[in-house]
Amino acid sequence: MAHDEYTWPAGVQSAACFTLDLDAHSPHLWIHRGGMPQLLSHLEQRRFGPRVGVGRILDLLDRFAIKGTFFVPGFVAEEFPEILPTLVERGHEIGLHGYFHELANDLSDEGFTHALDHSIALFEAQTGIRPKGFRSPAWEMTPHMLAEVKRLGMWDSSLMGYDHPYTVDGVTEIPPQWTLDDAVYFKFLGGGVDLAPPSAPGPILDGWLDEWEGLHRFGSLFMLTVHDWISGRAQRIVMLEKLLTRITAEKSVWWATVSEIAAHHEATQKDRYVIDPSVPQGVEGHPAWRG
Amino acid sequence: MAHDEYTWPAGVQSAACFTLDLDAHSPHLWIHRGGMPQLLSHLEQRRFGPRVGVGRILDLLDRFAIKGTFFVPGFVAEEFPEILPTLVERGHEIGLHGYFHELANDLSDEGFTHALDHSIALFEAQTGIRPKGFRSPAWEMTPHMLAEVKRLGMWDSSLMGYDHPYTVDGVTEIPPQWTLDDAVYFKFLGGGVDLAPPSAPGPILDGWLDEWEGLHRFGSLFMLTVHDWISGRAQRIVMLEKLLTRITAEKSVWWATVSEIAAHHEATQKDRYVIDPSVPQGVEGHPAWRG
Amino acid sequence: MAHDEYTWPAGVQSAACFTLDLDAHSPHLWIHRGGMPQLLSHLEQRRFGPRVGVGRILDLLDRFAIKGTFFVPGFVAEEFPEILPTLVERGHEIGLHGYFHELANDLSDEGFTHALDHSIALFEAQTGIRPKGFRSPAWEMTPHMLAEVKRLGMWDSSLMGYDHPYTVDGVTEIPPQWTLDDAVYFKFLGGGVDLAPPSAPGPILDGWLDEWEGLHRFGSLFMLTVHDWISGRAQRIVMLEKLLTRITAEKSVWWATVSEIAAHHEATQKDRYVIDPSVPQGVEGHPAWRG
Amino acid sequence: MAHDEYTWPAGVQSAACFTLDLDAHSPHLWIHRGGMPQLLSHLEQRRFGPRVGVGRILDLLDRFAIKGTFFVPGFVAEEFPEILPTLVERGHEIGLHGYFHELANDLSDEGFTHALDHSIALFEAQTGIRPKGFRSPAWEMTPHMLAEVKRLGMWDSSLMGYDHPYTVDGVTEIPPQWTLDDAVYFKFLGGGVDLAPPSAPGPILDGWLDEWEGLHRFGSLFMLTVHDWISGRAQRIVMLEKLLTRITAEKSVWWATVSEIAAHHEATQKDRYVIDPSVPQGVEGHPAWRG
Repeated sequence: MAHDEYTWPAGVQSAACFTLDLDAHSPHLWIHRGGMPQLLSHLEQRRFGPRVGVGRILDLLDRFAIKGTFFVPGFVAEEFPEILPTLVERGHEIGLHGYFHELANDLSDEGFTHALDHSIALFEAQTGIRPKGFRSPAWEMTPHMLAEVKRLGMWDSSLMGYDHPYTVDGVTEIPPQWTLDDAVYFKFLGGGVDLAPPSAPGPILDGWLDEWEGLHRFGSLFMLTVHDWISGRAQRIVMLEKLLTRITAEKSVWWATVSEIAAHHEATQKDRYVIDPSVPQGVEGHPAWRG
Repeated sequence: MAHDEYTWPAGVQSAACFTLDLDAHSPHLWIHRGGMPQLLSHLEQRRFGPRVGVGRILDLLDRFAIKGTFFVPGFVAEEFPEILPTLVERGHEIGLHGYFHELANDLSDEGFTHALDHSIALFEAQTGIRPKGFRSPAWEMTPHMLAEVKRLGMWDSSLMGYDHPYTVDGVTEIPPQWTLDDAVYFKFLGGGVDLAPPSAPGPILDGWLDEWEGLHRFGSLFMLTVHDWISGRAQRIVMLEKLLTRITAEKSVWWATVSEIAAHHEATQKDRYVIDPSVPQGVEGHPAWRG
Repeated sequence: MAHDEYTWPAGVQSAACFTLDLDAHSPHLWIHRGGMPQLLSHLEQRRFGPRVGVGRILDLLDRFAIKGTFFVPGFVAEEFPEILPTLVERGHEIGLHGYFHELANDLSDEGFTHALDHSIALFEAQTGIRPKGFRSPAWEMTPHMLAEVKRLGMWDSSLMGYDHPYTVDGVTEIPPQWTLDDAVYFKFLGGGVDLAPPSAPGPILDGWLDEWEGLHRFGSLFMLTVHDWISGRAQRIVMLEKLLTRITAEKSVWWATVSEIAAHHEATQKDRYVIDPSVPQGVEGHPAWRG
Repeated sequence: MAHDEYTWPAGVQSAACFTLDLDAHSPHLWIHRGGMPQLLSHLEQRRFGPRVGVGRILDLLDRFAIKGTFFVPGFVAEEFPEILPTLVERGHEIGLHGYFHELANDLSDEGFTHALDHSIALFEAQTGIRPKGFRSPAWEMTPHMLAEVKRLGMWDSSLMGYDHPYTVDGVTEIPPQWTLDDAVYFKFLGGGVDLAPPSAPGPILDGWLDEWEGLHRFGSLFMLTVHDWISGRAQRIVMLEKLLTRITAEKSVWWATVSEIAAHHEATQKDRYVIDPSVPQGVEGHPAWRG
C-alpha cells in the first residue's frame, strides 16, 4: 500500500508511450493452425492494417512528433517486408511480438523459444537491428517466457502489476493495461467470434482521458496500445487525434519509446518495485482449505 | 503502407453509399433449415421490415434525394413480390444477397451457385433487370464465390480489405465495414440468440459521424449498411435522419449507388489496389513453427 | 411497404401504453423446475419488486395520472395476494402472464392451457375480474397459444410485426418491442446467467425518447414495458420520471391501457393489418434449395 | 407494496456506505483450486490492488473524511499482513469475505464453516479485533451460511431484497446491489473469461449519481462496492472523486460504516422488514403445474 512515488527525469510529471501491436492476420494463422478455412472475411479485415491503417497512424504520429514502439510478429514482417525498414526509417522503435501471435496458454516452452529465435533473426536480417524488448501476444506470460526474456537481456511489456515500470526477476517490466487497449473495445470480426459489438468511441475516449488525468496526477505511466487493423479505421484516427491533441497540450508529460522508459528505470529504480515471478502454491494442503 | 490516394471524379472529395440488406425472415429459414420451430416471435420481428420499415426508409431517402442499393435475398422477393418492382420504380438499385441468406461457412460450392442462379432468374422475371452486383450474407466470402461473381461479370460488396474500392482477381470490390452496419449494434431478437443488448443510438450516431469525418478527410468511401427490420424502427429512422442531415450538408460528397461507384473504379483505377483472393498457407511446415 | 396510416381518435396523433410485467421470482421457479437450489441471491433480488419496486412505480404513475396495464403471473398473485386487488383499486388494468412465467419454447400445448386456466381462476377469485388480455413470457408465441387466446376472446400483447395494433387470425395484437423493454438493458442477476452488464441509463433514456419521437411522428404506438424488480430500483425511477415528464408534455398523445387500445382497434380497424399466424414452410423441397 | 418509510437518526435523509471487497488474487486461487496454471497475467492484474490500488483509495477516503468497510478474504490478509492493521489504524472497519473467496454454489456447508473459522482467527491474530460482519463472495448466500452468521452474532451484507437495512431470520442485512458494484462494469481480465469489455466510466458515473439521487429521495441506503484491483486504477479514482464530491455536498446524507448502519437498524427497526430465509418449494406438485 505504498504511496505513488515513481520518479521521472527532472521536469517530468508523468510519462506516456504510444505502442502499436501490428498483428495483421498473424492471429488468424495461429487460430487456424490445425487447418486454414477457405474463408476470406477475417483475412481481409486484418490485412486492412498493413495496407491502410499503419500509414494513417504513422502520419498521425508525425503530426504530433511522437515516436512509438511497434510490436511486430515475425510472420507479419515476413509477409510485408517493407514494414520494419519503414518503421525504423521514420524513427520508431520495433519490438518482438511472437512469430504467429502464439498464445502462451497453448504453447510449449520449446515452441516459444523456437518462435522467439526465428523472430530475432528475421528482425536482424531485415533491419540490422536486434530488438531490445518483447511483448507477449494477449499479454499472457509464463515463468519460462520471463526466463527467456531475461536470458536475452530484454525488457518486457506484458504484465500489469503496476502502472509504472517495475522489475520481475531482473527483467524490466513496462506495463500496459487492458483499459488502454483499443482491441478490448473495438475489435470486431463477425462470424460468431466476438465478445460484444464495437463500443461507441466518444465515451471510451473520455475514459482514456480520465485514465490519463489520473495517471498524470499520480506521476505514473500512460501506455496506450492500438492495433493496425483496428485503430487504422477512420473513426479511430479521429479519436486518436483528439486524444493526442489533449495530452500533448500538457508539457510535463514525457513521450518516450518503451526502450527509453526502460533505460530510465534501469538507471534509476531497478531495485524498487521488484516482484517474484513464480506462480503461488494452490489451495491444496492449506489449513483453511477443505474442498 | 501507401498513403490514401484514391481518386474520385472532379469536385468530389469522398463518396458515400446507402445500402440496405433486405433480409426480412430469410435468415430464419436458413437457420432453421433442419426444421421450422412452431414459434412466431422471430418471424414477426423480421416481417416488420417489409411491412413497415422499408416504406419508412424509402420515404427518408426521397427526402434527401439519395438513391440506394438494396440487396434482396431471393426468398424475400418471392414472398413480397411488390418489393423489387417498387425499388426499381423509385429509382434505387437492386442487388443479389443469396436466396435464403445462406452463410458461406455452412454452404457447399454447388449450393451457392444453385441459389445464385435461382436468384438471378427471379430478379429478371420480376423486373426485367439483371442485377449487376452481389453482396454475401454476413459478408463472408470463399474463393469459389468470388470465382462465380467473376464468371457473371458482377461487382462484389462483401470484403473489407480497404475502405475504398479495390480489385480482387478481376472482381471490383466495393467494401462495407462492420462499424457502419446497423445489425452489429441494434440487432436483437430475444430467445437466447443475441450477442448483447441493443446499443444506445446516440453514441453510435456520434461514432458514425466520426467515421464519416475521417473517411471524408482521407478521400475514401462511406458505405452505410442498414436492414429493413432493424433500421425501420422509429428510433433508427430518427438516427438516420440526423446522420443524413449532417453528411448531405457537405457538398463535396458523391452519393452514388454501388454500381455507379463500381463503374467509376473500373473506368479509372481497376489495376490499382489489386489483391490475390487465395487463402494463404497455414503454419504447418513453416520453419518458425513448432506445434 | 404501406405508408404509416394507422388512425386514432380525433385529436390524437399517437398513443402510449405503460405496461409492467410483474414477474417477481416466478421465472426463478420456472428455470429451476427440475429442483430448487439452496441459494438466496436471485430470489431476494426478484422479491425486491413486490416489496419495494411496485409501490414506487404506482406512486410515479399517480403523479402523471397514467393508468397502466400490469401483467401478473399466477404464482406472483398467489404469493402476494394484495397485489391484484391493489392494482385494481388504484385504477390500473391487470392482464395474464402465465402461471410460473413458462417459456413457450419448452412448454407443451397442454401445459400452456392448464396454466392459463389456473391463472384466470385465480384472477377471478382475487378480484372478481376476468382479465381481457394476455402477454406471453419473453414474448414468444406458438400457433396453439394464439388459438387459445382467440378461444377466450382476449387480446394479445406479445408479437412485434408492427408498431401499432394489428390482427392475427382474429386476435387483436397490441405490439410491444424489445427496444422499449427495461429488461433488455438493465436485467442483471449475477452468478453467471447474464448476457451483459447493466447499461448506463442516460443513453438508453435518450434512445427511448428518440423512439417516442419517431413513433409520435409516424402516428404509431409507444408501448413501454418495465419490470417490478428492475425498474423499481431508484436509478430507473429517476429515469422513468424524466421519460414521462417529456412525453406527457405532448398533449396529442393518448395514454391508454392495453384494453382501451384494443377496443379502439376492434371498433375501427380490425380488418386492416391482418396477418396469418401459421409458421411458413421450411426450405426443404424449395427449388432454390440444395442442402 | 409498502411505501418507502425507513427511518434514520434525526437530521438524516438517507445513508451511504463506502465498501471495498479487497479480493486481490484470492478468487484466482479459488478458480484454480484443481491446479494452478503457470500463467502470470491474471495474478499480476489482481496484485495491482494491494500494491497500488488500496493506497490510492485510502488517500481518497481521507480527503473526504469517509470511513469505509473493507471486506478482506483470509488469504489476502495472510499474503499481505500489513493490510488489516493499516486499515484499522486509518479508522476503517474490517469485515469477513471468505478465505479464498469461495463461491457458495460450489462449496460444502462444512467448507464454508471451516473457512469462516480460520478467517476469524486470522483477523483476531493480526489486529486483536473480532469482525462484526460478513459479506459473501459474489453475494450468494445459502440458508446454512445465514445460520452460521446468526450463530456468530454478526450482520450480513450480501442480499438485495430491499435497498435499506432489513432482517433475515434475526440477522441484520445491510444490502448491496449490483448496479453500484464496480466489478459489474469494469472487471476485465483477458484470456477469454470476461462477460464484456469494460464500460466507459462517464455514463456509469451518471447512473450511479441517478441511483444516489433516487435513494436519497426515498430515504434509503446508497451502498457502493468497489474492488482494490479494479477501482484502484487511475480512471476510476477520477470517477470516484467526482462521485464523492457530488454526494458529500449534500449534508443530510449519513456516511457510516456497515456496523454503524447495522447498530442503528438493530436499535430502532429490527422487527420491521423481516423476511423468511428459507428457499420456497419448487413447482413440482403445484396444481397449476403440468410439466
